[in-house]
Amino acid sequence: MHMRIIGIDPGYAIMGYGILEVKGNRFIPIEYGSLTTPAKMPMEERLAILYNGLEQLIATYKPDEAAIEELFFNNNAKTALLVGQARGIALLACMRGGVKISEYTPLQIKQALVGYGRADKKQMQSMVKTMLGLREVPKPDDTADALAAAICHGHCISSRLNIFLK
Amino acid sequence: MHMRIIGIDPGYAIMGYGILEVKGNRFIPIEYGSLTTPAKMPMEERLAILYNGLEQLIATYKPDEAAIEELFFNNNAKTALLVGQARGIALLACMRGGVKISEYTPLQIKQALVGYGRADKKQMQSMVKTMLGLREVPKPDDTADALAAAICHGHCISSRLNIFLK
Repeated sequence: MHMRIIGIDPGYAIMGYGILEVKGNRFIPIEYGSLTTPAKMPMEERLAILYNGLEQLIATYKPDEAAIEELFFNNNAKTALLVGQARGIALLACMRGGVKISEYTPLQIKQALVGYGRADKKQMQSMVKTMLGLREVPKPDDTADALAAAICHGHCISSRLNIFLK
Repeated sequence: MHMRIIGIDPGYAIMGYGILEVKGNRFIPIEYGSLTTPAKMPMEERLAILYNGLEQLIATYKPDEAAIEELFFNNNAKTALLVGQARGIALLACMRGGVKISEYTPLQIKQALVGYGRADKKQMQSMVKTMLGLREVPKPDDTADALAAAICHGHCISSRLNIFLK
């Protein structure tokens, strides 16, 4: 089966994305990178850039499903509000593009990639690189995180399918 | 001069809105109410309902400018993230609808309506009712808050124009 997944790491300054194709047990990277917005631009314009960017990615690469990390903030409510605005945009772009959304905690993503929840950022990034057969760790970190979310969802789908096939 | 303002009180369960027309020193209520979403619906569907609702209001009533309250959370980062998602949707709907956005703090809105920052919710709501010549205080609170933001912006515009006319 072929299934396309877009992983999204939401942020208002940088929104990382990574599109994978799941073929059996393999993950094939299709496109990855990040959408960025200038710091001095009014927030609504930054959000529109991010929405348009995601809309275009979804129209171009036609992912079937999306994986977005659940975000946690240690009581930094101001940051949470701002990142929430960007996350809302990402959810809307997927919803309106007909892309089914799954959400994963950071722990779930770590466990899917490295098998335990204590992996550090470098181990995670190196695992993303290895699993996708890339030459370099994708930059910025937001792109690697988006790919990690997509891989995590790919694992879940594979397990789901294996259960169905049994 | 005629200027239409939409005030928005963003939330994911209830999004209050109020559309006013500013004619000289008077504020004429055009339409007000709230968009609501069911608690058990996935967040992306709730956000899409809110976006579609705002998009339709903007297309129907063609406001020139929008007023949205700046939100503050006392370190409740989880709530801030969720409300931020809804607020992002509101900003996007205005931006894509060509509606210029102004943001006001709760204090600015209180001062514009009651003249001092210590007014309580009831005084604010009663002032909204009086200034718009309504028979009842608009319900829910989110609608009254949206109208209050719109009135605040109307005041700012009037002052702006008075300065220009001098």
